[in-house]
Amino acid sequence: MTLDKTPASFQPPVRTLMGPGPSDVHPRVLQAMARPTIGHLDPAFIDMMDEIKQMLQYAFRTDNAMTMPISAPGSAGMEATFVNLVQPGDTVIVCQNGVFGGRMKENVLRCGATPVMVEDPWGRAVDVDKVEQALKAHPEASVLAFVHAETSTGARSDAEALCKLAQAHGCLTIVDAVTSLGGSELEVDAWGIDAIYSGSQKCLSVAPGLSPVSFSERALEKVRNRKHPVQSWFLDLNLVMGYWGAGAKRAYHHTAPVNALYGLHEGLVMLMEEGIENAWARHQRNHQALKAGLEAMGLRFVVPEDERLPQLNAVHIPEGVDDAAVRGRLLREFNLEIGAGLGDLAGKVWRIGLMGYASRRSNVLFCLSALESILVEMQAPIEKGVAVSAAMAALGEG
Amino acid sequence: MTLDKTPASFQPPVRTLMGPGPSDVHPRVLQAMARPTIGHLDPAFIDMMDEIKQMLQYAFRTDNAMTMPISAPGSAGMEATFVNLVQPGDTVIVCQNGVFGGRMKENVLRCGATPVMVEDPWGRAVDVDKVEQALKAHPEASVLAFVHAETSTGARSDAEALCKLAQAHGCLTIVDAVTSLGGSELEVDAWGIDAIYSGSQKCLSVAPGLSPVSFSERALEKVRNRKHPVQSWFLDLNLVMGYWGAGAKRAYHHTAPVNALYGLHEGLVMLMEEGIENAWARHQRNHQALKAGLEAMGLRFVVPEDERLPQLNAVHIPEGVDDAAVRGRLLREFNLEIGAGLGDLAGKVWRIGLMGYASRRSNVLFCLSALESILVEMQAPIEKGVAVSAAMAALGEG
Repeated sequence: MTLDKTPASFQPPVRTLMGPGPSDVHPRVLQAMARPTIGHLDPAFIDMMDEIKQMLQYAFRTDNAMTMPISAPGSAGMEATFVNLVQPGDTVIVCQNGVFGGRMKENVLRCGATPVMVEDPWGRAVDVDKVEQALKAHPEASVLAFVHAETSTGARSDAEALCKLAQAHGCLTIVDAVTSLGGSELEVDAWGIDAIYSGSQKCLSVAPGLSPVSFSERALEKVRNRKHPVQSWFLDLNLVMGYWGAGAKRAYHHTAPVNALYGLHEGLVMLMEEGIENAWARHQRNHQALKAGLEAMGLRFVVPEDERLPQLNAVHIPEGVDDAAVRGRLLREFNLEIGAGLGDLAGKVWRIGLMGYASRRSNVLFCLSALESILVEMQAPIEKGVAVSAAMAALGEG
Repeated sequence: MTLDKTPASFQPPVRTLMGPGPSDVHPRVLQAMARPTIGHLDPAFIDMMDEIKQMLQYAFRTDNAMTMPISAPGSAGMEATFVNLVQPGDTVIVCQNGVFGGRMKENVLRCGATPVMVEDPWGRAVDVDKVEQALKAHPEASVLAFVHAETSTGARSDAEALCKLAQAHGCLTIVDAVTSLGGSELEVDAWGIDAIYSGSQKCLSVAPGLSPVSFSERALEKVRNRKHPVQSWFLDLNLVMGYWGAGAKRAYHHTAPVNALYGLHEGLVMLMEEGIENAWARHQRNHQALKAGLEAMGLRFVVPEDERLPQLNAVHIPEGVDDAAVRGRLLREFNLEIGAGLGDLAGKVWRIGLMGYASRRSNVLFCLSALESILVEMQAPIEKGVAVSAAMAALGEG
């Protein structure tokens, strides 16, 4: 695959991103990333790092000193929590109700530990009673790991109840909040979460590539007392914290992704300007509108109402409708991206994201109109001409 | 450290980056990063990924199919080469002549393997004869790892000779080219390199955060035949290649850092526009000018001339001059960043980078003038008023 000539500069199409992420990045964030690069040990940069840490504490609702972004995507954030808290020979209870619980299992195995799986149907919350049984059956377990907001299905699990159970059984908790941070209620300290990771590209309106994480003092105590060195040099908290830690003196560990961090800083400034409770309420309001419109068309949600995430709406594809054809037309004719199903749900559901900057009234109406027009042309069995008015009525009530 | 109020948007100072990296990012690259984010599985994005792979093959001078950027900084690229090619119980010969060989040793240990160290003085190239002795003494070794361009000292090692030796002894090679890619001669295929990693933030004029890597077919054969799973899920080549691999169908692995990749694409387009041999020649020409100026002032280089990298100029700090005071004044009064020494060289040397977009005539003259003016004010024992003319004379000869 040799190049005949130098490629042109890449000019991306201007899409509306209503899939499972990345979601629309706010123009202020895009602008921030284009500011001049400075050194990763520049005093001005160190000050900015401190602000990022403080704003992430705000977003995570925590006083944890070890709260910072990992210099890589959410998958690396996940790995950072496991390689630091799990040692060879440990037993880890892993809840799986979608794709990402399966990834947690992979991480446990690669740490040389034993995963005990608690499985629930895709599209449902983690069953708290089954977790309690697993904790009782495995007193040797040291960690309980679960996904707060399952991006593959849109299901929200009861993180507070699960953390309480873990504490009662002497387990630390590892929580995936990739899709929840900034989009719906999340309380790291109040719920007693020990290790949590998220992603920049969902409800923070920031480009993909960074993974905010936070670790409790209990978790750090465990890291400090490890018998085995952390298997990843890049993700070893003892080293990362030398760079992101408190105090003016920062030890060089790796070269931080300077411009990506400008973007995260700007996204967090915008979150604080809005107020995090207001951001949660906005996500809920736009979800209600989208839901009203989709249900008026006759589409059914995958997840029961009380286990549903407002920022990720998984709906069943109507009978006889070709998944890829619809998504392809939305992309080509409307520059609108919605998400496909993953794993067992591939070809059966669409995932419509309303995350961060993408969670706005205009997107709700745009998506409903575009989807309806294509489904009508394809002669899908849906109700016509009612989606937008149903959404507007829901917004009026909000 | 609770925030009293929402921080302002971050407006970085406009620096000239002549340290060991990040180096100046070209304005075209900064602009590229601010383009609208699209999905990481968008057909337009997949096409751009293919162009990046092809342009990286051009930059690395290789036909290796597995040539792509790791979605994290160079330290993660280093880790990607080790965790894929090294298994528990292996023996790895690691050359150390600066900071980064030490990091390689850490990686080997964390893979559960045994490092055999070949140590050379900081500021010197790796001694090829000593490596040959080590290869003979350790027929059980399966990998030879060394740093081509030691960022901590500015020393260039003979990668071609070292790879030939490794092949003669049945070893794969892992090569650190973080500082060499795009700045000085590097021939992955002609030299027979098996696994190589670099960074976006040095001679490619791109923001930090990505690590271009390339793996030979011999290396992939070893990865495919591993007995132990790769200990990192995020860096497991078998999985990464499902996303970056050939063909239209890409398996979701992690969410790619979309806007950072826009920047890398633009930097590589610019490299091809210039032509890589021209880029090497430019780095050499500006190095000669800086060298003439520094030596005219009376400053001495750390590295012998025939082992010197043109893109990283380490010089001894003149007797009685306060390292931090000079660098602090350069930063505050001139917005100019030069690098401090690392490890044993801390406080004893400066590292002046001429990398990528930072390697230009105006920077050479600016740095010499600013440094001279401060050293004169501090009454340092240097020759006055000769640096700029010496540099100009060298440029005239070029």
